[in-house]
Amino acid sequence: MSTYNFSAGPAVMPKPVIEQIQAELPSFQGSEMSIMEISHRSQLFDQVINDAEADLRDLMAIPDNYHVLFFQGGGTLQFTAAPLNLATKHHHIGLLDSGHWASRAADEARRVNTQVDILGTAAATHFTALPTLTAPVDQNLDYVHITTNNTIEGTAYTTLPVTGNVPLVADMSSNFLGQVYNVSDFGMIFAGAQKNLGPAGLTIVIVRDDLIGQAQNLPSMLDYQLFADKRSMFNTPPVFAIYAAGLVLKWLKQQGGLKVVEQHNRTKANLLYDFLDQSKLFTCQVKPTDRSLMNVPFVTGTPALDAQVIAGATQHGLLNLKGHRLVGGMRASLYNAMPLAGVQALVDYLAAFEANHAKGELTHVSN
Amino acid sequence: MSTYNFSAGPAVMPKPVIEQIQAELPSFQGSEMSIMEISHRSQLFDQVINDAEADLRDLMAIPDNYHVLFFQGGGTLQFTAAPLNLATKHHHIGLLDSGHWASRAADEARRVNTQVDILGTAAATHFTALPTLTAPVDQNLDYVHITTNNTIEGTAYTTLPVTGNVPLVADMSSNFLGQVYNVSDFGMIFAGAQKNLGPAGLTIVIVRDDLIGQAQNLPSMLDYQLFADKRSMFNTPPVFAIYAAGLVLKWLKQQGGLKVVEQHNRTKANLLYDFLDQSKLFTCQVKPTDRSLMNVPFVTGTPALDAQVIAGATQHGLLNLKGHRLVGGMRASLYNAMPLAGVQALVDYLAAFEANHAKGELTHVSN
Repeated sequence: MSTYNFSAGPAVMPKPVIEQIQAELPSFQGSEMSIMEISHRSQLFDQVINDAEADLRDLMAIPDNYHVLFFQGGGTLQFTAAPLNLATKHHHIGLLDSGHWASRAADEARRVNTQVDILGTAAATHFTALPTLTAPVDQNLDYVHITTNNTIEGTAYTTLPVTGNVPLVADMSSNFLGQVYNVSDFGMIFAGAQKNLGPAGLTIVIVRDDLIGQAQNLPSMLDYQLFADKRSMFNTPPVFAIYAAGLVLKWLKQQGGLKVVEQHNRTKANLLYDFLDQSKLFTCQVKPTDRSLMNVPFVTGTPALDAQVIAGATQHGLLNLKGHRLVGGMRASLYNAMPLAGVQALVDYLAAFEANHAKGELTHVSN
Repeated sequence: MSTYNFSAGPAVMPKPVIEQIQAELPSFQGSEMSIMEISHRSQLFDQVINDAEADLRDLMAIPDNYHVLFFQGGGTLQFTAAPLNLATKHHHIGLLDSGHWASRAADEARRVNTQVDILGTAAATHFTALPTLTAPVDQNLDYVHITTNNTIEGTAYTTLPVTGNVPLVADMSSNFLGQVYNVSDFGMIFAGAQKNLGPAGLTIVIVRDDLIGQAQNLPSMLDYQLFADKRSMFNTPPVFAIYAAGLVLKWLKQQGGLKVVEQHNRTKANLLYDFLDQSKLFTCQVKPTDRSLMNVPFVTGTPALDAQVIAGATQHGLLNLKGHRLVGGMRASLYNAMPLAGVQALVDYLAAFEANHAKGELTHVSN
């Protein structure tokens, strides 16, 4: 039986990448040292980090006036670092409240004495749609924060909010490299690696060079200008995670780049959404135009039945379909490394479950 | 030819650990998922992090009133977090200036508005000895910071400075698990993993529970109480690094625990120090009573000759002996995973180099 891992993150990685890591784990590039054992100051690692940056720049067409930085600490550390580095003029940012992670970002910004205006919220829809701006954006904000993909709620931006001259800062953690965005539409993009890029423990920051360098006296591990000056090696970076991410980036290029990958993701997601929309048992409650390509939450409407769906799926090798504890139900995460065959297997299973359930219902009615 | 990796970090790891990681990389515990792909909220990972904590507690005999926390960001992030969490009463700490990393710690503490008193410095000896307290410790300090092992300078504390009721906070990054300390002598211990514990990207914090929870409104990724409450999983932890560290901890237990490991490290270090002290060519400038078991810096006194030593060593499979750029010369790092045979090979090589050099010198003199 094939197994498929629908985890929201840490998540499925490309098989050829795992095989390459396994093959060269004892001796990286013939060095007789594991990649885990090599110095971040070595030429071997220099090549690794330079390649990773170059491949990322290539894949995302990152303009030269943007820095690519390698951090640790996940998106959450950037919820602190972004306002410290970028909100230096007004100490005042805007934020579109699209759910859990947007709300966390607001909390962390406030903890470092940044005023946060909620410019729109999707609370009234229980975050089953994206929020919209309730008014034109005040041009005296340092930036506007959005979460491009909402892992828990299953929404994602395709069209970006219009913010005039105010830079857009995007937490792209869960659809980074999963769909095409135009980097120059953003002042800054950041993303934890553990969805589409590699193992947990690495965070990418892409930031326009004119937006940084204004902050004084920041802790070094939160200082974008210092990281830019030191090529992300002020202290020891997460060598293994950068190496693994580098292999994933090479794999993405072999797939044909992000346009091809996005198209594949769209095919995968549509297969599942189309099934859910015609189903009489399963429902995806997310507004069709706002749906994520990466994370598909759905429910039967009955928690006990959801639990049966999940338990049965696990028996069929369809792993980690349990929805986030905040929303319950099911969630299928369809990151880049999830093959179409996995989504097809999921749809087949759900269709069979529904058919069996309908029979059971009829039996129950006819009794 | 056997190769030996004398890198100061990231550094050599135990071979059986690398072999185990390699063997189970495609399917962790029969899950059909790589350890890199499993959710941090899964039972599988629960076992990993619980075992790692339990084994660390066991190895170091960590009392119950100490938390064990898993962070990212290296020692450098803790240079910021420690004063934010622990220097809440007086915003005033003491520090013993034992070299580069102590000085970095002082810088970062000052960046978060903590007054730092240098209670002693080894600058006059060019840090070839440990600093000593110049006066009894002011009991109105929040804590006193020391660096138990100075990776660059090659010094280490065996006897701790006497600080009365003021807690001692130790950056133990480069001799964590390499020699035995009594945890209850410290208010807090922290250590980056990439010396004796595993791959880079993980930092351990061991902190006495009564010292935390006083700070208000900290960024979440710097909040010890939050990490304690959330079992280090407020956000996604570095799953792979924790897993690898867990395997190293099990390996350490198999070696017989830290007393045995320290004794082995002492044998290894003495082999090299004894050679250096009798050598007419090589010198270790560090004061004998203050010498590190982990990092052994030495010189010929002539940079061009040092370069020859290093180049020849590389040809003999003795890797990464170049000293830190701040001090030059050579440095041999002898972490737990370095076998005695590696140190013997180094001593043999250095002895042969010296003999050849002496012949050359004589030839030169007789010409």
